[in-house]
Amino acid sequence: MIKAGIIGSTGYAGAELVRLLLNHPDSEIVWYGSRSYVDEPYADVYGNFFELVDAKCLDDDLDALAERADVIFTATPQGFCASKVSAELLAKTKVIDLSADFRIKDPARYEEWYGIRHGAPELLPEAVYGLTELHRDEVASARLIANPGCFPTCSILTVAPLLENGLIDPDTVIIDAKSGTSGAGRGAKVPNLFCEVNETVKAYGVTVHRHTPEIEDQLSLAASRPILVQFTPHLIPMNRGICVTAYASLKDGVSEHDVRSAYEAAYRDEPFVRVLPEGRIPETRYVRGSNYADVNFRIDPRTKRVVMMGVIDNVVKGAAGQAVQNMNVMFGIPETTGLAGIPMPF
Amino acid sequence: MIKAGIIGSTGYAGAELVRLLLNHPDSEIVWYGSRSYVDEPYADVYGNFFELVDAKCLDDDLDALAERADVIFTATPQGFCASKVSAELLAKTKVIDLSADFRIKDPARYEEWYGIRHGAPELLPEAVYGLTELHRDEVASARLIANPGCFPTCSILTVAPLLENGLIDPDTVIIDAKSGTSGAGRGAKVPNLFCEVNETVKAYGVTVHRHTPEIEDQLSLAASRPILVQFTPHLIPMNRGICVTAYASLKDGVSEHDVRSAYEAAYRDEPFVRVLPEGRIPETRYVRGSNYADVNFRIDPRTKRVVMMGVIDNVVKGAAGQAVQNMNVMFGIPETTGLAGIPMPF
Amino acid sequence: MIKAGIIGSTGYAGAELVRLLLNHPDSEIVWYGSRSYVDEPYADVYGNFFELVDAKCLDDDLDALAERADVIFTATPQGFCASKVSAELLAKTKVIDLSADFRIKDPARYEEWYGIRHGAPELLPEAVYGLTELHRDEVASARLIANPGCFPTCSILTVAPLLENGLIDPDTVIIDAKSGTSGAGRGAKVPNLFCEVNETVKAYGVTVHRHTPEIEDQLSLAASRPILVQFTPHLIPMNRGICVTAYASLKDGVSEHDVRSAYEAAYRDEPFVRVLPEGRIPETRYVRGSNYADVNFRIDPRTKRVVMMGVIDNVVKGAAGQAVQNMNVMFGIPETTGLAGIPMPF
Amino acid sequence: MIKAGIIGSTGYAGAELVRLLLNHPDSEIVWYGSRSYVDEPYADVYGNFFELVDAKCLDDDLDALAERADVIFTATPQGFCASKVSAELLAKTKVIDLSADFRIKDPARYEEWYGIRHGAPELLPEAVYGLTELHRDEVASARLIANPGCFPTCSILTVAPLLENGLIDPDTVIIDAKSGTSGAGRGAKVPNLFCEVNETVKAYGVTVHRHTPEIEDQLSLAASRPILVQFTPHLIPMNRGICVTAYASLKDGVSEHDVRSAYEAAYRDEPFVRVLPEGRIPETRYVRGSNYADVNFRIDPRTKRVVMMGVIDNVVKGAAGQAVQNMNVMFGIPETTGLAGIPMPF
Repeated sequence: MIKAGIIGSTGYAGAELVRLLLNHPDSEIVWYGSRSYVDEPYADVYGNFFELVDAKCLDDDLDALAERADVIFTATPQGFCASKVSAELLAKTKVIDLSADFRIKDPARYEEWYGIRHGAPELLPEAVYGLTELHRDEVASARLIANPGCFPTCSILTVAPLLENGLIDPDTVIIDAKSGTSGAGRGAKVPNLFCEVNETVKAYGVTVHRHTPEIEDQLSLAASRPILVQFTPHLIPMNRGICVTAYASLKDGVSEHDVRSAYEAAYRDEPFVRVLPEGRIPETRYVRGSNYADVNFRIDPRTKRVVMMGVIDNVVKGAAGQAVQNMNVMFGIPETTGLAGIPMPF
Repeated sequence: MIKAGIIGSTGYAGAELVRLLLNHPDSEIVWYGSRSYVDEPYADVYGNFFELVDAKCLDDDLDALAERADVIFTATPQGFCASKVSAELLAKTKVIDLSADFRIKDPARYEEWYGIRHGAPELLPEAVYGLTELHRDEVASARLIANPGCFPTCSILTVAPLLENGLIDPDTVIIDAKSGTSGAGRGAKVPNLFCEVNETVKAYGVTVHRHTPEIEDQLSLAASRPILVQFTPHLIPMNRGICVTAYASLKDGVSEHDVRSAYEAAYRDEPFVRVLPEGRIPETRYVRGSNYADVNFRIDPRTKRVVMMGVIDNVVKGAAGQAVQNMNVMFGIPETTGLAGIPMPF
Repeated sequence: MIKAGIIGSTGYAGAELVRLLLNHPDSEIVWYGSRSYVDEPYADVYGNFFELVDAKCLDDDLDALAERADVIFTATPQGFCASKVSAELLAKTKVIDLSADFRIKDPARYEEWYGIRHGAPELLPEAVYGLTELHRDEVASARLIANPGCFPTCSILTVAPLLENGLIDPDTVIIDAKSGTSGAGRGAKVPNLFCEVNETVKAYGVTVHRHTPEIEDQLSLAASRPILVQFTPHLIPMNRGICVTAYASLKDGVSEHDVRSAYEAAYRDEPFVRVLPEGRIPETRYVRGSNYADVNFRIDPRTKRVVMMGVIDNVVKGAAGQAVQNMNVMFGIPETTGLAGIPMPF
Repeated sequence: MIKAGIIGSTGYAGAELVRLLLNHPDSEIVWYGSRSYVDEPYADVYGNFFELVDAKCLDDDLDALAERADVIFTATPQGFCASKVSAELLAKTKVIDLSADFRIKDPARYEEWYGIRHGAPELLPEAVYGLTELHRDEVASARLIANPGCFPTCSILTVAPLLENGLIDPDTVIIDAKSGTSGAGRGAKVPNLFCEVNETVKAYGVTVHRHTPEIEDQLSLAASRPILVQFTPHLIPMNRGICVTAYASLKDGVSEHDVRSAYEAAYRDEPFVRVLPEGRIPETRYVRGSNYADVNFRIDPRTKRVVMMGVIDNVVKGAAGQAVQNMNVMFGIPETTGLAGIPMPF
């Protein structure tokens, strides 16, 4: 039984971790961390867990937690994990960080995009970027996982196979993403109020969104050369889901068959990535509540571009589900354990 | 392994049956019936089942199905089940009817409220009203289950304990209910279009809704005398969930403690009914996707009334989940099998 | 040209006042008060007013404003207006208070329900409850208007005619209300976040909601004797709209015709109250953005009750629209001036 | 007083025409055409018009209507207008066609994208593409207006100024659009049901959407040379609004100032196009219910691209509002008449 502690358990990603781990046959939660709700019953914060969770919220004492837990999930704001994690801590327990602190290998690049100094640059080399499909082997032996961002997860899974196979021009990649509002977090801010989000759509972070360098780093790996990406997220009036529509120019001579083969080769053995049949367009509702990523594409013979499409549930595959997937790999149990939830289409 | 067939598998209740049964360790689906989609892959209708369901839709040939299935779920319009089921069929297989055909014992009363002749009045006596919490023993030995309506399920669980214990005046029961739009079904009708439902609320079926006699029959049983109920449903812009707010005058001398004791006695051993702590108001999001019913109440000392509150997921406890719960009881397996899904609060 | 000042112009009621007054041919806004946004351009807070409002936000200096304005709208939290208004101020300018401060004539009752001491009890006698349809003549000569709450406006318009005409038993009135989320205000609180409100329904303030005494006071006036009301509001995932479903026992011998006649007599000459034809159920979308209240009813011959139904846009007839209606009456211009906006049904 | 007839008055664009024309001081509606609702009171279809419209629905007899009306709006499916309009009819009355029939000058191109034969190719030369901002002079003297599609309106207003001024590479234009569901029309189809649209996002018509040639034709005019456009629309769970995010590579040496100047020069005198200040991102809520288009842009110095952003209300500026704007120009009255509605931000 894997003993898991969650720091930041009352945020949306944290609450989803609880939902998933309660259904996980080989794991138990030993610490519900939440600085804002210390000593309050966890089920008072999320009434769905009434009669399912008796525990009260605890603070964020990682050292105490490290004594009790086999793995710590940090679902916390940027900077927290890097300021608390250490080689000493990692000697006692594994850490899966759902924040961005260890996603970008270059601390200068991190500081440029996030505007804060990195608290533990010495650990960056060992941290593994936990997009399981791309880095499974390293995940298996990691002590410190940088769990990918929601937009990067969906973007990379959607675009990487075509870059890896050299089918598209790396300088033409444009990613237009749409996200449900849980992605904005549970902070009490006016722009996240119901009446400010409902019945409207807007872009945000245009040209400067912090997930850009993370996407670029991973797509550069896929392309085997540095690339820049145009990334624009949009806020959508729904709770969950990310929909990525990505554009790139096809290299000369690339056929429909080439593209489909690239996707199928990449994901044939992946339990959580579904390459949809020709003509089926991914919809976020068809992955809701599940760890699936659905991808597909369409070639435009007029413009010689490929339109790549992918969807995930931002809270599951884009956060908590992927974190559990990584935990499974790290502890050597079947990767799909506890993640068999079937998408809820409505 | 219980072999299950579903007639009407592409409606919303049918699709939820599929979602639940796929996760059920002791059951398998042998027939995806859907007259409208015969020969089409089921996963083409509900993309969430891609790679999870390979089967194609079949028609609604109950006789053929009876040869193959241990249990048939009919998630079909009023009149269908009664026109097809027979003693002969029931000798071969069990039937759980999610329509209203067998919920009302008196065929004249059925015909009065539904406006159609009952197709199998001879089977009404043996049909068991499948509100498991109230009729568990009869369910266990039944061949034909009348699976309760969504509003009745929520209304009866919310109100019955106080009637059973004689705490409220049976002539004062008023039930004001609010339902998500999946309750209106998947028929292609203008009033169910997104732009007709979104951003608006309305009552419907005022004084004449067909779930009224079903609620009255069961609450009359609870009260041990005939009662009339004022029932008003409302359509709410959300996918799932029913919220019942019911009102009744307390009998003289009834205390807060009496009411709470009645609820707790009724539901202490029930796996799917949660009596919330004092002061916690039920919210539909906290049961979403699960088979739970959450209930609570508040006494108004000024008016001497009790306000009873209950919530369910109309598609789960109000339809497919309860049907599976009944199946479990009928086949003698643990009642919660396949129904451990934790509510998804957002 | 009526010079109007708005205190609290960046809340939802305040913003709607701006929208309405900008289209008002005989009024101009001279003061956009908003303590939180002092010196910021108003159109930076509400982008819809870009190029329509050049003004910057000012603070809430009522004395300075009184020198400039013919009327001051206070769309502020409870307690503010009563702490600032005075006979001296009212000698200079009229005040329309959108808070609850002057709605309840008895200061002890106010303090009991609101939990704060009344700041200006000496002004309560002259304050006029601005439900224009009921108190038009007093509104015309008032200096201080207590603009009604959103739930009371809808509840009273829906129920009062039957009490006035003695058609229902005053001790049986139960009001079940459903409100869009703008009614909860623009405060940055977790329970009002998109993901906490979307896809869920709940009751709140059960048996203790502060609009109860206000409804009771006005319905007592209508009934010509004190009455208690059971009032339960619910929060609905939509921006705007209130839907009231009210229940009462009919007095013996009261007919459908009696009830309809009572409504029609009450509202025949009212420009903003529409009695719908028999069989048409009010829907909030059909009054959205407008100052209309739509009402109708249905008698249940089985239970001898009448189900009374009413809808308004909570931000218009339930707040800003009614405030403008009152302003029009106070300044002797046609009551419908600036309020001709046609409901936007989707 | 301009006498207007509407064919297709019960669709969403038709209903919005009614809402706008009822508030238009110089126009009156003389014909509420709706084949599906002939002889039914119009206000029975759209309850918001109760007491505002007494008329019953009529059929689609354009010849009879031409005798009565100064202008006919056809808000009808593709093919209808072209099959009914004739030089004879245009000699009697003006026609503003809200369908696509006359938007594409080349009938072969129309037939290729729409899959139907054009019914009146002889009228294509005289038809004027009614994007008022681009073709005001021709609109003024037109008898037959091809009212632009919703996506083209928003796309062209967002992109055209940069093409006209030669600031972007015409071969790199990618338009990613998001639309509210009213754009899908009021047809009773399963994919438009509430539970199929709510809480999900998807692309549709990928690489083959019919608005593509219309966008290309107009942008080719702006660029003074033929261009191809990558256009992808998405369906969003909201009633109204279109948000366009468009991408293009900047030509060498183009500065922020150049781009801003191009927008400002294009729209400085336009009453309905607002170029937002630097840093303000367009949001659909800020144009809701109004005829405004809000545009802005952001340059990415890393990728040398410009991200162009525009929003409209698809039913107003994208359909009915623009149609009224064209009517105003055609009849020589002030262009903004009847279109002063202020956006409703929530």
